[in-house]
Amino acid sequence: MKIGFIGLGNMGGPMAANLVKAGHAVAGFDLAAPMPEGVAKAATAAEAAQGADVVITMLPNGAILRAVADQVIPAMAAGAVFCDCSTVDVESARAAAAQAQAAGLGALDAPVSGGVGGASAGTLTFMVGGDATAFDKVKPLFDVMGQKAVHCGQAGAGQAAKICNNMILGATMIATCEAFALADKLGLDRARMFDVVSTSSGYSWSMNAYCPAPGVGPQSPADNGYRPGFAAELMLKDLRLSQQAAEAVDADTPMGELAAALYARFVEDEDGKGKDFSAMLPRFEARHRKG
Amino acid sequence: MKIGFIGLGNMGGPMAANLVKAGHAVAGFDLAAPMPEGVAKAATAAEAAQGADVVITMLPNGAILRAVADQVIPAMAAGAVFCDCSTVDVESARAAAAQAQAAGLGALDAPVSGGVGGASAGTLTFMVGGDATAFDKVKPLFDVMGQKAVHCGQAGAGQAAKICNNMILGATMIATCEAFALADKLGLDRARMFDVVSTSSGYSWSMNAYCPAPGVGPQSPADNGYRPGFAAELMLKDLRLSQQAAEAVDADTPMGELAAALYARFVEDEDGKGKDFSAMLPRFEARHRKG
Repeated sequence: MKIGFIGLGNMGGPMAANLVKAGHAVAGFDLAAPMPEGVAKAATAAEAAQGADVVITMLPNGAILRAVADQVIPAMAAGAVFCDCSTVDVESARAAAAQAQAAGLGALDAPVSGGVGGASAGTLTFMVGGDATAFDKVKPLFDVMGQKAVHCGQAGAGQAAKICNNMILGATMIATCEAFALADKLGLDRARMFDVVSTSSGYSWSMNAYCPAPGVGPQSPADNGYRPGFAAELMLKDLRLSQQAAEAVDADTPMGELAAALYARFVEDEDGKGKDFSAMLPRFEARHRKG
Repeated sequence: MKIGFIGLGNMGGPMAANLVKAGHAVAGFDLAAPMPEGVAKAATAAEAAQGADVVITMLPNGAILRAVADQVIPAMAAGAVFCDCSTVDVESARAAAAQAQAAGLGALDAPVSGGVGGASAGTLTFMVGGDATAFDKVKPLFDVMGQKAVHCGQAGAGQAAKICNNMILGATMIATCEAFALADKLGLDRARMFDVVSTSSGYSWSMNAYCPAPGVGPQSPADNGYRPGFAAELMLKDLRLSQQAAEAVDADTPMGELAAALYARFVEDEDGKGKDFSAMLPRFEARHRKG
């Protein structure tokens, strides 16, 4: 396929490279990042989009997505698909999709999980909103860039699934970390704590697959000095998107709200910036109640 | 073995009945509950304990445990084991264990998970604190009353493991419920939400094994009108024990604190009493932000 790719940073770069390796023709545009090998550099976003079957965007936020959509959508050929893989607010995702559909294009919001490692290895998970025809058309590309693509529903459903998942994740990780710190102070050995919780009703991805305690459970960023992995500031971004969405639809999400506040404090006022989001455990270890 | 069993209510009754079925001689005492078939009724707690190899207690709270320990421990034979299966505060568990050890007895704190259903079916999980000799002695009884017994460490470690697990569980369940309610309002289908989260980084026992959304995921109390299961007021009890322990050791547990506050409001001011703890989902469905 002929693909336009806008946004070739830490995530977009390796995703585009995997498309090239699979034999697709990729024209790329980025304000700053270098082109991966085999990606034809376009002078503008619109030029990258011209004649493409699918335009993929991987951008930092909803405002930039809207600006890029304004440039790219008029340049696209009728019947092509505008596929945004950024993690952005649900409203921006829906606005971009509506704009694309009004221009006779297919549209998908397809945020990913799996991070830079998953982007390089081609093992991302795509959570996809949009109509089935567009999903089926882009599915072979998702299969190249990732190992799983779930069609979640209509426009915005991909973003909704991602922020709901990550809101649960953020709250559960903090709960797991504070429980480890409490267990420490109660004299409960961490290996025993892991044995009990990972096989009982407290189990979760945070405990079982990404255990925040070094030397316990599977290999995780905790075993690598809490280098990300999934950075605390990216978790904060997703939690803020969840709270923005909750505000917009008048939903009550007290755990998500508290998780956002705790990650904001961790990243902005404490020393969480640049650390994995599981580094909440040493934070709770070091800190006293109400600290 | 010769067993004294103090506290034969909803949990203790079926646990004692399973010991009788396995061929053990059980003398029971309860202020109110009837004796299960085959349990010899004692006139006092002390009488039930006399000559027993193991005394098992299943009581509502730490104050009652301390009162029963005062009566029972002086009546026990040297070398016997005092095994408390109640869920109580860590300090009361340690006080009872210290009192038993000072009297030349073995001592275990062995709270359970699995509820009344697990007690009847003999499928409880025991989280056990105390020395290895006492654990080994009582292990055959745990195997009759349950399917798993984890030795978590010294006195109090069983209670610590249970409250840490259930603190994670309470916070994760609320996060899962509020995320479902947010997903609804964002137009994300619940079956899709389950498909994504249960196989992604938001997975947990609350989502995967006990899904709070009716008709989605495995059979759970949600599919039975939110009849417990694990009642919201019992979750509240455990969350309060976790906060009592956190206060005692100066640990910071903000998610546990919020979960305790939300379950307190649900049980005491709203209509949560008598419902399963997963009935937080209809609560969030019905309620607007800041409600």
